[in-house]
Amino acid sequence: MNSFGQLFKLTTFGESHGAGIGGIIDGCPAGLAIDFDFIQSELNRRKPGQSKITTQRNESDTVQFYSGIFEGFTTGTPIGFFIKNKDQHSNDYNNLKDVYRPSHADYTYAEKYGVRDHRGGGRSSARETIARVVGGAVAKLLLNEMNISVQAYVHSVGTIELEKPYTDLDLSTAENSIVRCPHPATAEKMIARIEEAGRNHDTVGGTIACVVQGVPVGWGSPVFNKLHADLGFAMLGINAVKGFEYGSGFEGTKLSGSEHNDIFVTENGKVKTLTNHSGGIQGGISNGQDIYMKVAFKPIATLLKEQNTIDKELKATTINPKGRHDPCVLPRAVPIVESMAALVLADHYLQSKLSRL
Amino acid sequence: MNSFGQLFKLTTFGESHGAGIGGIIDGCPAGLAIDFDFIQSELNRRKPGQSKITTQRNESDTVQFYSGIFEGFTTGTPIGFFIKNKDQHSNDYNNLKDVYRPSHADYTYAEKYGVRDHRGGGRSSARETIARVVGGAVAKLLLNEMNISVQAYVHSVGTIELEKPYTDLDLSTAENSIVRCPHPATAEKMIARIEEAGRNHDTVGGTIACVVQGVPVGWGSPVFNKLHADLGFAMLGINAVKGFEYGSGFEGTKLSGSEHNDIFVTENGKVKTLTNHSGGIQGGISNGQDIYMKVAFKPIATLLKEQNTIDKELKATTINPKGRHDPCVLPRAVPIVESMAALVLADHYLQSKLSRL
Amino acid sequence: MNSFGQLFKLTTFGESHGAGIGGIIDGCPAGLAIDFDFIQSELNRRKPGQSKITTQRNESDTVQFYSGIFEGFTTGTPIGFFIKNKDQHSNDYNNLKDVYRPSHADYTYAEKYGVRDHRGGGRSSARETIARVVGGAVAKLLLNEMNISVQAYVHSVGTIELEKPYTDLDLSTAENSIVRCPHPATAEKMIARIEEAGRNHDTVGGTIACVVQGVPVGWGSPVFNKLHADLGFAMLGINAVKGFEYGSGFEGTKLSGSEHNDIFVTENGKVKTLTNHSGGIQGGISNGQDIYMKVAFKPIATLLKEQNTIDKELKATTINPKGRHDPCVLPRAVPIVESMAALVLADHYLQSKLSRL
Amino acid sequence: MNSFGQLFKLTTFGESHGAGIGGIIDGCPAGLAIDFDFIQSELNRRKPGQSKITTQRNESDTVQFYSGIFEGFTTGTPIGFFIKNKDQHSNDYNNLKDVYRPSHADYTYAEKYGVRDHRGGGRSSARETIARVVGGAVAKLLLNEMNISVQAYVHSVGTIELEKPYTDLDLSTAENSIVRCPHPATAEKMIARIEEAGRNHDTVGGTIACVVQGVPVGWGSPVFNKLHADLGFAMLGINAVKGFEYGSGFEGTKLSGSEHNDIFVTENGKVKTLTNHSGGIQGGISNGQDIYMKVAFKPIATLLKEQNTIDKELKATTINPKGRHDPCVLPRAVPIVESMAALVLADHYLQSKLSRL
Repeated sequence: MNSFGQLFKLTTFGESHGAGIGGIIDGCPAGLAIDFDFIQSELNRRKPGQSKITTQRNESDTVQFYSGIFEGFTTGTPIGFFIKNKDQHSNDYNNLKDVYRPSHADYTYAEKYGVRDHRGGGRSSARETIARVVGGAVAKLLLNEMNISVQAYVHSVGTIELEKPYTDLDLSTAENSIVRCPHPATAEKMIARIEEAGRNHDTVGGTIACVVQGVPVGWGSPVFNKLHADLGFAMLGINAVKGFEYGSGFEGTKLSGSEHNDIFVTENGKVKTLTNHSGGIQGGISNGQDIYMKVAFKPIATLLKEQNTIDKELKATTINPKGRHDPCVLPRAVPIVESMAALVLADHYLQSKLSRL
Repeated sequence: MNSFGQLFKLTTFGESHGAGIGGIIDGCPAGLAIDFDFIQSELNRRKPGQSKITTQRNESDTVQFYSGIFEGFTTGTPIGFFIKNKDQHSNDYNNLKDVYRPSHADYTYAEKYGVRDHRGGGRSSARETIARVVGGAVAKLLLNEMNISVQAYVHSVGTIELEKPYTDLDLSTAENSIVRCPHPATAEKMIARIEEAGRNHDTVGGTIACVVQGVPVGWGSPVFNKLHADLGFAMLGINAVKGFEYGSGFEGTKLSGSEHNDIFVTENGKVKTLTNHSGGIQGGISNGQDIYMKVAFKPIATLLKEQNTIDKELKATTINPKGRHDPCVLPRAVPIVESMAALVLADHYLQSKLSRL
Repeated sequence: MNSFGQLFKLTTFGESHGAGIGGIIDGCPAGLAIDFDFIQSELNRRKPGQSKITTQRNESDTVQFYSGIFEGFTTGTPIGFFIKNKDQHSNDYNNLKDVYRPSHADYTYAEKYGVRDHRGGGRSSARETIARVVGGAVAKLLLNEMNISVQAYVHSVGTIELEKPYTDLDLSTAENSIVRCPHPATAEKMIARIEEAGRNHDTVGGTIACVVQGVPVGWGSPVFNKLHADLGFAMLGINAVKGFEYGSGFEGTKLSGSEHNDIFVTENGKVKTLTNHSGGIQGGISNGQDIYMKVAFKPIATLLKEQNTIDKELKATTINPKGRHDPCVLPRAVPIVESMAALVLADHYLQSKLSRL
Repeated sequence: MNSFGQLFKLTTFGESHGAGIGGIIDGCPAGLAIDFDFIQSELNRRKPGQSKITTQRNESDTVQFYSGIFEGFTTGTPIGFFIKNKDQHSNDYNNLKDVYRPSHADYTYAEKYGVRDHRGGGRSSARETIARVVGGAVAKLLLNEMNISVQAYVHSVGTIELEKPYTDLDLSTAENSIVRCPHPATAEKMIARIEEAGRNHDTVGGTIACVVQGVPVGWGSPVFNKLHADLGFAMLGINAVKGFEYGSGFEGTKLSGSEHNDIFVTENGKVKTLTNHSGGIQGGISNGQDIYMKVAFKPIATLLKEQNTIDKELKATTINPKGRHDPCVLPRAVPIVESMAALVLADHYLQSKLSRL
């Protein structure tokens, strides 16, 4: 239950306030050059304390690789890795030991397992996603070999929404902004909105868009493991995600078929479509156009203000969490979204080797 | 790649214009009473030709069970089943042999496999979902033993949207309407919209909502296989689906955390939440409240009118499909959505037996 | 639990006295030519009633393919198939309804599932292996494309043992003998031994050897899924199998390392080993030499004579089975052994595509 | 490919001369008390340098747990662990860099992956089994809760064989002997035989028997995943294993059915069999009697003397390995055999929860 992927498989372990977070990447082909600096730079994009709009926790988040790499190249054997937890203020959570935080995993977790590591959410903490960023970074290196890029950015924060389609933006500029939105004016408004939430001891949600370019025609599967179903599964497995759509998504349901269909044309001997409502995927299989998807994140549940709730004895009580928390998860979630997309695509790359004799 | 589920597992086979569609249900516990009439009634809800707003193809869609059931009860061994294809007008597809239909799986499929069964979409046809309805019906029988109900309905057709929340509706009335919307006035508008699309040789999309009631606290998993991630994966694997959300979904991203959090209270010794933005799932695990989700369906791609496209040689051509097609997939997709939800929940029921010593 | 293989996957269903036996082959690449006559000929090698030393039950064992094949070639989609049961004398089993046959699955089955299909062993009947022969025949067609052959033969019946190593025999002659032993003088003795067992209403066990030729270097996996571990798992899953060895096997444990090691030499630019104690597999991975293994079958448990046993109430009783049974399972098990070997190798063929960038 | 088990799943990583060996145990139920001293004592049974008949390498083999355990009990989340490599004399292997050792994984490995970590066998080293002992120790703790014991012992070394059946021995005394044979006189001969091999710079093989007591009726599966098939797969995945048998094994093939069948009787209301040729498993499912199996180990391939071989260019050369190696793998393999058995049984314990409604 803690593994992701069929052929390019990531298994993770670790809790927010335990020794650390780690994992095993199994199925990465031999012969891939590993760029350790790139992997660390991906972790840095996810790291707490990176800007004024993220939590001020201080984690170095340095990954150690234990196996599977020899003289800078993958050997085809499992890649074990580990990231130590450092800046644990477990005492911040003592007052949560017997109380269920609203809209958190505390209550459901305690009922499922009968035991609960109350410190920082235990296994349900988003700190687990650090292992996904390591796995995703290796997947990106594999995809790079085929000139496939994966680029996510913040599309909305609360009601502030980027109005331009991604095709009108330079996505590479997203990293220039601390909120990871590639449109400076919108980015500014988003930052102000997040700062406002922080001042109010409140939180704010939003959406992240992700674009994958360079995927050849023919990746995916026609029935259960449609390429977008695997992508949706990946995204819905990220903490705080409430929805997923690709291509025309929910808005596309309002169109008629004659408006929605993407007409094929040939350009310089290459097939393309005049529109891309399909989001690069038709019948569950990539069609060579850009893959485009959007992911909804709820406002995170930990508010630094008093709320009503119940305790372990199911008695009414109040809660007033301490600790250092993000008022908005979106800027740090951008590399996580990219990582999950990269893991899915690396898996389908391997699957694509098997479809024909 | 043609199996669904971890412990309650459905594997399907079959193409729209082959001998038929079938599958194997593996992992169903022994001792479950099988109500064959119920299973057939579920297939009838999905059947073509059931009303004036569905395709007029005529299939009896009668399921034969081959194994796994003895004297009316499951034996714990795999349940094999088969549904013959009958009303195949394969010749309707002869003109499609060398042409790629816009927004269909034809092109991607041909590139993936190098061969293509052009008759009716082959494996990518939604006729495959008949096997999911059989699997879902057995899953429903299992869930019934625990008083869990799964009820879907059409929430929107094009821009016509049901305005009331499900809590204000009697969902059991959805079946009284051929469009499967539990609000008669809205249902009428939806039917008119579908008939209009049919007259225009066009198609129309929409959304289906699904409500699961009676799931106990503690089903699901905290990381990749969050209960909603498995549900989303299930839904995104249905033909024509473009998006999935649960609980507050995309709209919820606009709220602040203090508006969005669901406050726990105790009522008659039972835990409940004052609101249900969580959609019955917190931290990937059911919290005992209603599970609520919404699924987006695009307008289906087969239009009975001329469109531009390309052929196998990548040359420009036109297409003008014949055949008998649904102008709107939603009424027949309702039992498919329910089936996929039931399959996921039956799987998590089994998983829930394993979490504690 | 009813699936075999990782990438080339066979899932089976069916009981001996139900409607029939069937399965789904998932993961077979597109573009493989299907020789239906060959598949049927494999089934005929396993069929009851084929000679005087097998059960005289009369089954046509004709396979129907339902999907996954179009115009004679695989399409890359799942291959569904079914074999009807015909010659069912279920009444022969009425007296077994409440009694547990010695060394059969009756007792363990009833305890596991709480219900039992007592007719002919239900799911635990060797009739299930018919589906493996279909799957194995398709796997053989795939291996044929790479000039890989899989050939099994009866190596011993009771204490009568073939004394020559396989390298001194013409394995293709095994099929000339009804006992499937490639050494005519030994075959005669084996037949006499089986006929003696039949006259005594008794049964007799033995061993089957299997040789796979043409596997390239590099198939397999270094840790859990060693090529011989997957082969052993496959063989131990056949009814009545009690042991598996490959290469030097149990006898090899008596040698010292300096006697046992296979020395590498180069011959015409090709690597070979002077001996083959390794049985073609080193460190779990094929080394290009012949793969050689041996499988032990117990004498089957159904004796047509009176034996003491207990009934469902755990009371002492006697049993005196009727029905038509093989006095020796080995001749009909030869194609089953080959099929399981072929399924494993087809799987590792696909896996071998994934090990390098 | 580096995971073992369906529900109680162990995934391992690490090479003999890398940073260390580790793994993840996924699927262990919450609430199991973890006895760290017991786990370490299991590792000590496998450790190099434990007696005069094992390699004199010096590894502390201390396991660190990273996750999944809170206040001494499992939490139901994945258990990550790591064992550092310490005593690495990688230079001992420099002369092996371009040479393929006879009957080793060097050649097959290089062909499979295109790259090879030549230091100590890399991933194909038996040092990987340290992770299995950790996993097996946790599995034993789980089985202990049900009063199930797993006990292995050395049954033969070369041609020196323990003549008494296990039922006439006190298996608990096996640990009193450095060769782990529970019969002192035989143990002495075995030790002398191993010392002789060591003096000759040679190696010697043998067999290990394993007895599992206390398994209730009904664990296992009737088709592919027969309990003995899973056990055989587990054992054949251990380095140097060449064969597996259970119950009457290869010898039993020589009996007639009337000699071989195990007659059921009832004793004090409990079912037992008069003989146990079935080895505690009938139709793939445990029958409540002792599970008995035997595993064949070849003489290990690394000889500290000159042998002919080839190099990477396929040219003839000689090899004369240095390093510190076991002349006989069996004494240290006893806890590995037990661990693999325990992992299989823990898995089937979980599976047994799913068979009935």
